[in-house]
Amino acid sequence: MNARVSTHVYCGTSLDGFIARPDGDIGWLVRFADDEALAAYNEFAARIDVMVIGRGTFEKVLEFDTWPYDKPVYLLSSTLERPPEGFQDKVTIVCLKPSDLLAHLYEAGFRAAYIDGGKVVQSFLAEDLIDELIVAKVPVLIGEGITLFGSLASDIEFDHQETRICSNGLVRSYYARLDRA
Amino acid sequence: MNARVSTHVYCGTSLDGFIARPDGDIGWLVRFADDEALAAYNEFAARIDVMVIGRGTFEKVLEFDTWPYDKPVYLLSSTLERPPEGFQDKVTIVCLKPSDLLAHLYEAGFRAAYIDGGKVVQSFLAEDLIDELIVAKVPVLIGEGITLFGSLASDIEFDHQETRICSNGLVRSYYARLDRA
Repeated sequence: MNARVSTHVYCGTSLDGFIARPDGDIGWLVRFADDEALAAYNEFAARIDVMVIGRGTFEKVLEFDTWPYDKPVYLLSSTLERPPEGFQDKVTIVCLKPSDLLAHLYEAGFRAAYIDGGKVVQSFLAEDLIDELIVAKVPVLIGEGITLFGSLASDIEFDHQETRICSNGLVRSYYARLDRA
Repeated sequence: MNARVSTHVYCGTSLDGFIARPDGDIGWLVRFADDEALAAYNEFAARIDVMVIGRGTFEKVLEFDTWPYDKPVYLLSSTLERPPEGFQDKVTIVCLKPSDLLAHLYEAGFRAAYIDGGKVVQSFLAEDLIDELIVAKVPVLIGEGITLFGSLASDIEFDHQETRICSNGLVRSYYARLDRA
């Protein structure tokens, strides 16, 4: 395998495994984002030097009042050609397959990428290109929604590294891809 | 609410939330059933005095060499009228809605029911009739399969009681229905 950045997923899910309601709402999740949860996220974010997101996540972020990322952001899209007005210095649009993007990021000097957004994560998992998976589960069933995972060519085994319990009932498990642990 | 048995779910899932492959295979799960996992299951089973299963689980169990249950078994089915030859003393077939079954079991002297099988669990959750939910998660993504959860009329909140980590990477979380904790 060519040199590439390492890949990391950090997400919150409901007890029934959804990352958002069908309309994208994450209010049920955000109310568990207390200081303890934010500290864990910041600890993770300090290990990351670049973001990879998809168009769905990008469009959601455009609704925010402020740009939430303090790292360079690569936007995977086959339809967008250039960032909207005002975002040219914030986002680099790329149309590459996952493995090529990871090699490209490495050559650009990055070492650890946060892979974010349901469809983007699925496309990386489909090629078994996720090295670390961190899932924070909140104790609520929401019934239906958007899932983080999709179908796979074959099983992918992870090594359980650690699970941390938060006082608000959030259970955060850290997994590393088994063969690469 | 009328007096009823308490209801308990104990299940194993993949990291992507499936309880079985599409064809029912659970080999990927069973290999995590070491002594530590069996001890936890036995500890749970000692708190239970009756089983409630559906036709899907029953038909799977019929393929086993030996009858796996040491508790009375109630089989929820609207199509089966009587148990197959040789199982009349092992299974009671009932066609009742979940709340009525729980009252019926209470009147019959039971106090704690293990609700088992994807569709049966979903029908109880749809009526918010699960008091305890125990989920043991193995560190493997299987891509597709049968889920434990289904759509709901509204969110159901649980209280995280405890999470135990097994040496083989299995993460078992215990949840109690919030309002009833």
